Amino acid sequence: MDPRVREHAAIVADHSVDLGAGDTVVIDAHPVAEDLVVALHEVIGDRGAHPLTTGQRTGERNRRAYLRAAAAADVEFETPAHELALIEETDVYIAVRAGENVTETSDVAPETNAAFARAHRPIQEERLSKRWCLTQFPAPANAQLAGMSTEGYENFVWDAVNKDWDAQRAFQAEMVEIMDPAEEIRIKSGETTDVRMSIAGNPTRNDYGEHNLPGGEVFTAPIPDSVEGEVLFDMPLYHQGREITDVHLIFEGGAVVSHSAGKNEELLTEVLNTDDGARRLGELGIGMNRDIDRFTYNMLFDEKMGDTVHMAVGRAYDDTVGEGNETNDSAVHVDMIVDMSDDSFIEVDGERVQEDGTFVFEEGA
Amino acid sequence: MDPRVREHAAIVADHSVDLGAGDTVVIDAHPVAEDLVVALHEVIGDRGAHPLTTGQRTGERNRRAYLRAAAAADVEFETPAHELALIEETDVYIAVRAGENVTETSDVAPETNAAFARAHRPIQEERLSKRWCLTQFPAPANAQLAGMSTEGYENFVWDAVNKDWDAQRAFQAEMVEIMDPAEEIRIKSGETTDVRMSIAGNPTRNDYGEHNLPGGEVFTAPIPDSVEGEVLFDMPLYHQGREITDVHLIFEGGAVVSHSAGKNEELLTEVLNTDDGARRLGELGIGMNRDIDRFTYNMLFDEKMGDTVHMAVGRAYDDTVGEGNETNDSAVHVDMIVDMSDDSFIEVDGERVQEDGTFVFEEGA
Repeated sequence: MDPRVREHAAIVADHSVDLGAGDTVVIDAHPVAEDLVVALHEVIGDRGAHPLTTGQRTGERNRRAYLRAAAAADVEFETPAHELALIEETDVYIAVRAGENVTETSDVAPETNAAFARAHRPIQEERLSKRWCLTQFPAPANAQLAGMSTEGYENFVWDAVNKDWDAQRAFQAEMVEIMDPAEEIRIKSGETTDVRMSIAGNPTRNDYGEHNLPGGEVFTAPIPDSVEGEVLFDMPLYHQGREITDVHLIFEGGAVVSHSAGKNEELLTEVLNTDDGARRLGELGIGMNRDIDRFTYNMLFDEKMGDTVHMAVGRAYDDTVGEGNETNDSAVHVDMIVDMSDDSFIEVDGERVQEDGTFVFEEGA
Repeated sequence: MDPRVREHAAIVADHSVDLGAGDTVVIDAHPVAEDLVVALHEVIGDRGAHPLTTGQRTGERNRRAYLRAAAAADVEFETPAHELALIEETDVYIAVRAGENVTETSDVAPETNAAFARAHRPIQEERLSKRWCLTQFPAPANAQLAGMSTEGYENFVWDAVNKDWDAQRAFQAEMVEIMDPAEEIRIKSGETTDVRMSIAGNPTRNDYGEHNLPGGEVFTAPIPDSVEGEVLFDMPLYHQGREITDVHLIFEGGAVVSHSAGKNEELLTEVLNTDDGARRLGELGIGMNRDIDRFTYNMLFDEKMGDTVHMAVGRAYDDTVGEGNETNDSAVHVDMIVDMSDDSFIEVDGERVQEDGTFVFEEGA
């Protein structure tokens, strides 16, 4: 086994989820990530915790088979009591992203996926209430999506994951200090993106590799009704096995009142129609991980790039909503990215804090 | 996908576990069985049931890694609350046997496996209280164990599984009629096996592909204290990734008072020392599936062969213990086989019902 796999597993256990004796742990992973799952089992055994492996992530052949058959039979999705009971009794939830074909669910109807997501929402909420971590195993199909060799992609992933998270935390804390007390943020990029939103009273979080591994962003929740303006998300995203490009959203009073996409617009429409919250923003994030130096069509990495910002339609994370502030509630949470490397700036309460991707507190600013 | 895989999945769903709308289902399988898992998901989706896949079976790399690390750290195994909660809320449990290396756990200490089994006993009991099915996927490693080509083994497995279970049920019912009201059974083979036991008041069950697929045996529980005599199990068995050969047991007052084995005797000793019930018989079974025409080192098939009997040390199945009769309780259930094809007979209340493998009610008797 590549020694970096065991290093990866140790970071998940010790840094991301603070694994301890007696913890009940669920590892959800595709078989292609077997090495990391095995290494996680070693750590779990060593600490006296209790592992259970599941294979419930989208992108697997079985998920596709189930969803298509259920849709063909006009089945009404329900929240499965056994899966909910499992997660309720789970202390630590580790999801490993990796697959054999990232477009495996591309022929599942978007409304089927959305209905399934709605039915599984209580399970997803339960997971987010635990110590949890989402990480990546560098499988060949993910390398292919990134346009990289498998070995090159392995280097990319493990460089981003197996790093000094204390140093990263300190760097990002400078941006948290700016945003945390702020009232309003404006994001401007070229002629196509100019959006303002209030974040007043909502805490800004420092993501240094706990819930997401790799981490590398600071993020908060916009006040749901405050978002005004338009955004062209010029980085593509993969959602349910399909690429959506050039998402353009116009916000009025916080809600998306007009939308378009270059490719797979109907999938975007389906996302926005999931529920009321799916038309509002649940997250604003600022990418700050300079070790992620290329776009790999993988949100877990892309949203952490140093010269990007991202916004998510759908659910806000509880810990980014200040007491007494309104939260945005939804069955979905879909991140989309704006490239800020050129002709772009971020303004916080009228002060420019980033220009063309460089922060005011960075060298070269 | 081989069309026999979908046929296999349909038999599991409709014949073995009577799958219905709203059922919560756990499928436990190694990734090498993916085709069958996918086909099961199609049926589950079609019926409006709820699938969850887990990978908890022995023989996987992750199980080995966990057990070795836990043993090295002197961890006390406990019953994991999340896995128990999952199974408590599960209606249907489907275990698929298949692996990439049947000796994967051969370097886990037997006492570690035994301690793990004891801690997981409440989960195992909960599973057995559900609609459940144990079946086989014809993976290359299982073909290798059988000394067969993968294609030859696929034919063997699907011939045994995808068959007319109503006809098999009727054939076996003839033996159930003989054993069900009987008091005593004697098994004699050559000079090495001569054992008597009472089955008075214990129901004899007809296994026609429900809990085991393939099925093909009739079985009951001996009265625990009644077993007297000796048995040489001349067919080898695989237990926890290791072969045990020529198991020889001497019974007095129902308990094993002396034991030996040709190979891996210490593993046999560990099994017998698991708990008190591990030294007594929990099952007597008569193989009756003539489509299983060769020994493949796989108990799920071997114990169903037409000219064999098998006995299991350890736990008795609840439905084979008559009201008011004593049951045998244990964390283990380990089957062992006697070849009855030559110089052998089965006597029921003094009447020969099988001689050299041929039943009295069969052609050629």
